[in-house]
Amino acid sequence: MSADMPAASRGSLTVVGLGPGDPALRTPAVTEALDAATDIIGYRTYIDLAGPFAPEQRVHASDNRMELDRARHAFDLAATGARVVMVSSGDPGVFAMAAAVMEALDHPEDPAWHQVQLSVLPGVTAAQAASALAGAPLGHDFCVLSLSDNLKPWAEIELRLALMCEADLVLALYNPRSKARPEQFRRAVALIRGRRAPETIVVLGRDIARPGEQLTVTTLADLDPDQVDMRTVVIVGSSRTKRIERPDGGCWVYTPRHY
Amino acid sequence: MSADMPAASRGSLTVVGLGPGDPALRTPAVTEALDAATDIIGYRTYIDLAGPFAPEQRVHASDNRMELDRARHAFDLAATGARVVMVSSGDPGVFAMAAAVMEALDHPEDPAWHQVQLSVLPGVTAAQAASALAGAPLGHDFCVLSLSDNLKPWAEIELRLALMCEADLVLALYNPRSKARPEQFRRAVALIRGRRAPETIVVLGRDIARPGEQLTVTTLADLDPDQVDMRTVVIVGSSRTKRIERPDGGCWVYTPRHY
Repeated sequence: MSADMPAASRGSLTVVGLGPGDPALRTPAVTEALDAATDIIGYRTYIDLAGPFAPEQRVHASDNRMELDRARHAFDLAATGARVVMVSSGDPGVFAMAAAVMEALDHPEDPAWHQVQLSVLPGVTAAQAASALAGAPLGHDFCVLSLSDNLKPWAEIELRLALMCEADLVLALYNPRSKARPEQFRRAVALIRGRRAPETIVVLGRDIARPGEQLTVTTLADLDPDQVDMRTVVIVGSSRTKRIERPDGGCWVYTPRHY
Repeated sequence: MSADMPAASRGSLTVVGLGPGDPALRTPAVTEALDAATDIIGYRTYIDLAGPFAPEQRVHASDNRMELDRARHAFDLAATGARVVMVSSGDPGVFAMAAAVMEALDHPEDPAWHQVQLSVLPGVTAAQAASALAGAPLGHDFCVLSLSDNLKPWAEIELRLALMCEADLVLALYNPRSKARPEQFRRAVALIRGRRAPETIVVLGRDIARPGEQLTVTTLADLDPDQVDMRTVVIVGSSRTKRIERPDGGCWVYTPRHY
């Protein structure tokens, strides 16, 4: 708190990660921030995950696409003295709201935004939750890529995939497929199939730690792109990723630490 | 629970991530597992982070290097019916104990290990905690790489670094430097300097969410390898990673979502 700024005039904006869904995977820091909020802002689905809220807490639910508008709205509220919490699923720093909030602050519509007490609280992201359920597929070097070309050119995505395959990293793929671009995931899979063995292990985590959770372990050869949608995180193993059969008929997947 | 196996004979092994340190960043699922454990096993430093424990809980603290022995010990205990919790800092699935536990299970010394109820509980890892404190440097595609060559050849690490740089990914570097190999981090930095601009933003997170937490924002040109030790996570920005000056004299760092 700076000496020339009375506490009452400074609002706060806390960007929080709810984790994958189950409140047992949400940090106490996030729960505490939610409890102390005067205003909660976010995409409707995540607001529903974060609630319920007390009657005196104001809830501002919005459409998923309006990240930057939502960030600006949050700063406007906080600049008036509100304690605003912006909710993301997973980790707000991984393909979620923290970057949008920083973008808004980088081009402030009001200098008062810089007086807002801003903080980011991390959370467990989808790839970690799917990895934990599968065993340890991210147990060695890995990369985290978004396949959405809403904000970056598809050619760049293909270039990155090709280089990651060359580096033999495990791939954690977010936003793999949407109704608006069903063909791109097929193209990504075709690219990876050209560079990794057919028996490469693939883990699909859909709605992990939410109702209807589905974990699928398959191979690059057997992967059906139609098994994958926007709510799925896709983990493609490296050449070293292995499976261990379980007596119950399932399996564990892990990437050894050593060479 | 299979029908032919009475509950009393089946122990459990739960591999948990304590998060970066501060209990406010530890999930309730992990706290609950710790509370229910009959036996807690792990590296001494992480045992200290996880405790204190009740007098009737048995604590098995070990040296950091003996991951595979520790995993085998955990299975042996669980196979006798104990509720064993194996502690990792951060996320057990990210350069931590989950892969070692899977390696042990893949080469079981006792078939009874396969009867143990095994689960992995994710946590917030060091790069996420440092990223949240800095703003959103991991806000776009990134990779997570260990610089330790205890278990993989250094040539492989250099190859991966070069490909990551070519892909213009943000780099999150774990185990960057130890007393036993002080020169390797210098070599890694030299390699990156040959491939990224001098003004590339670098974030150093040391003991984040622990006593003495230090967050340093510098550039690739100004980075002094001696600022970095084994307790530091190093985030090297992509060509697009930016900083925003803060009125208090510090700055935020973020990687924009778009191109």
